[in-house]
Amino acid sequence: MSRPRPLRLALLGCGVVGSAVVRLLEEQSAELAARVGAPLELAGIAVRRPNRHPGIDPALLTTDAHALVTRDDVDIVIEVIGGIEPARSLLLAALTSGKSVVSANKALLAEDGASLHAAAGAAGVDLYYEAAVAGAIPLLRPLRESLAGDRITRVIGIVNGTTNFVLSRMAASGAGFSEALAEATALGYAEADPSADIDGFDAAAKAAILAGLAFHTRVTAADVHREGISEVSAADVASATAMGCTVKLLAICERHGPDPRSTPAGTSGRESVAVRVHPAMIPDSHPLAGVGEAFNAVYVEAQAAGSLMFYGRGAGGEPTASAVLGDLVAVARNRLSGSRGAGESAYADLAIQPIGEVLTRYHVALDVADRPGVLAAVAGAFAEHGVSISTVRQEGRGDAATLVLVTHLAPDAALAATVHRLASYDFIRRVRSVMRVEGLPPD
Amino acid sequence: MSRPRPLRLALLGCGVVGSAVVRLLEEQSAELAARVGAPLELAGIAVRRPNRHPGIDPALLTTDAHALVTRDDVDIVIEVIGGIEPARSLLLAALTSGKSVVSANKALLAEDGASLHAAAGAAGVDLYYEAAVAGAIPLLRPLRESLAGDRITRVIGIVNGTTNFVLSRMAASGAGFSEALAEATALGYAEADPSADIDGFDAAAKAAILAGLAFHTRVTAADVHREGISEVSAADVASATAMGCTVKLLAICERHGPDPRSTPAGTSGRESVAVRVHPAMIPDSHPLAGVGEAFNAVYVEAQAAGSLMFYGRGAGGEPTASAVLGDLVAVARNRLSGSRGAGESAYADLAIQPIGEVLTRYHVALDVADRPGVLAAVAGAFAEHGVSISTVRQEGRGDAATLVLVTHLAPDAALAATVHRLASYDFIRRVRSVMRVEGLPPD
Repeated sequence: MSRPRPLRLALLGCGVVGSAVVRLLEEQSAELAARVGAPLELAGIAVRRPNRHPGIDPALLTTDAHALVTRDDVDIVIEVIGGIEPARSLLLAALTSGKSVVSANKALLAEDGASLHAAAGAAGVDLYYEAAVAGAIPLLRPLRESLAGDRITRVIGIVNGTTNFVLSRMAASGAGFSEALAEATALGYAEADPSADIDGFDAAAKAAILAGLAFHTRVTAADVHREGISEVSAADVASATAMGCTVKLLAICERHGPDPRSTPAGTSGRESVAVRVHPAMIPDSHPLAGVGEAFNAVYVEAQAAGSLMFYGRGAGGEPTASAVLGDLVAVARNRLSGSRGAGESAYADLAIQPIGEVLTRYHVALDVADRPGVLAAVAGAFAEHGVSISTVRQEGRGDAATLVLVTHLAPDAALAATVHRLASYDFIRRVRSVMRVEGLPPD
Repeated sequence: MSRPRPLRLALLGCGVVGSAVVRLLEEQSAELAARVGAPLELAGIAVRRPNRHPGIDPALLTTDAHALVTRDDVDIVIEVIGGIEPARSLLLAALTSGKSVVSANKALLAEDGASLHAAAGAAGVDLYYEAAVAGAIPLLRPLRESLAGDRITRVIGIVNGTTNFVLSRMAASGAGFSEALAEATALGYAEADPSADIDGFDAAAKAAILAGLAFHTRVTAADVHREGISEVSAADVASATAMGCTVKLLAICERHGPDPRSTPAGTSGRESVAVRVHPAMIPDSHPLAGVGEAFNAVYVEAQAAGSLMFYGRGAGGEPTASAVLGDLVAVARNRLSGSRGAGESAYADLAIQPIGEVLTRYHVALDVADRPGVLAAVAGAFAEHGVSISTVRQEGRGDAATLVLVTHLAPDAALAATVHRLASYDFIRRVRSVMRVEGLPPD
């Protein structure tokens, strides 16, 4: 048997992830060749500053990324530079030139996955991006392949390690947000400018990608309702603990609509999709509650499969490189056999539901004046907005009295309006904590 | 564009799983066609007693399974009858006739996967079997595809729902094994003859399949060291609780050998694979410890990806059918595009390590006479066999004194010999509990 021609790779970016990819390509070269059916060979690595990569063969380094991705001898382009530009232009050029692409770029896929998918489809090549969501956790492939015969109804993920680390520290030590963030920064779990993580941008991009795959609908980051964790207080965390819950930043993708097995009461008509990122309390008994430190996990509910959870490291050079190499093997095998993996699947084309219409539950803790009629007035404010209360308890007495309420499912806008109304009452001294509650059994 | 020819399916078996497959094929037919690129059509269903399937179109039913799987108009054969024969003959006939196969048959894959893979390879068709291990949990595809660029070092799974239910009940209520099994039977979690589950045969078949995929080596059920849970006592469970552990029936697949990043002390030479199923204590902090009731979960350690866990329902008609349909979509897509998914990967061909050589840790609880010199004699017995002790504590005093020891890693045979020696001492009143401990940090 003649030895098969090597498949040649162009790597864009050689930072933490890129250098781990280079190392794994070397260390695993025999195994990779056995799995692919042909050797994999680095044709070149595009970097900004070639003199900053002492461990890399200088002959491979180039600053001309565009020339590299369109070179005739390149089969597959691996992109780990991140951000929208120049990544988009480079990948479009690569795809148009007939190269298959493996990308770890969540921001780009969430912003403009449609253009990339269209270019891949037109050229008949692959576009894989497992590493873009939840790092090493095999997640996108199960969603788009293993569950392809099932109907996914909900995806709830902890998809940002920095915020999960901060919230885990707050819960463990009682620290406030700033103190826990400072600890995360000192330990290298948060970047110098942590806004992309803390404000939920990173999680929102991942939520858009997950929702698109789960519901066969194009979802961009702009479609995702987004709230970060900077407003989460020590009081919120303490309040969660008191009711047997844990605060997590959740990326939630839900399908709402006419299917009788998944329709929450009060919705009707055509199916729609709601995608949101916000802090929420989940019961300690929920599998996501135990996901601590910088780990990621994604909980999937499907009609036939039931509840599934995928857990692992969501970031870091080696975990991300592992996901890149898994994609690379699949793309390389397809290339050798002249076939192509599943392309974009957006046939369902569901509408995006605004956050105000999404059915959620609120936990509300109110410092109140402890006098007759207060509970009646509070209950009246909920009733006025059509929100029914699931549980209520009073903690303390006199000046230290706190009312803690959890609602049933109600439109998010009605819940927000109720809290707004409560804040106007003179007998409410302070709204101590307001947070959505997720992961409870259905009403 | 002309409407593509439907892909025609032969279904072997129409029990709990088969009837769920039929229902999902109907309910999801539009979605499945969109995802595959062509409609899927049932050509026939082979059953033993056609009059026992009132909800099924009688024109589809046949008792001649062999004729069905070799029919010219059949593209894909779905096998959910289980057991070795006639399943093996039927699937070999189907593969040889050029049909692609989706199977849920763990026993057959673990016993003779090699023959089936060879037939699939020779015919250039697909053989997929996600449903054979851990039901609905997408696991085999991630192992063989997503982690294809990584190096898996260990797989630890809770892969049998019946035994997990029984052990969960024992832990929750303090019940003994027989009582908990009776409860499982009454609730439908255990079959009338529970031996395949209780004695670990089911888990061993799954362990063989997992090890084969993880380590690119042929592993059969006969290669798996197997111990069931019928000897697990209430005392074992109480002893586990006292040391912050939980008892689980674990399927453990490990790679041992010269790789410096994964070599436990004391091993050397060529790489080998150890595969075993037995009850073990794991720390409550381990992600597998929280997997309760009839759920399954598989914890994977890979060099680059780190720790991953996959969690979900391991059995039941609908979860298993979901996995079958996921495979069906992949196989159908490959068939349409004239390509083929990854075949058997057994290139590593590692040796199987006997259980006696596997490095394990033991937890041992001994009822002892509380007199001077007892601890010295016990410690001497361990030292004599080259086993070092990690922790020891004494509970109670006088006639009720119990010594609880946990060892460091040592060859399993040395640990077993130590316990055998201890049982011969007259000051040991009773060996109260002996169980392996897994999931601790490395020594």
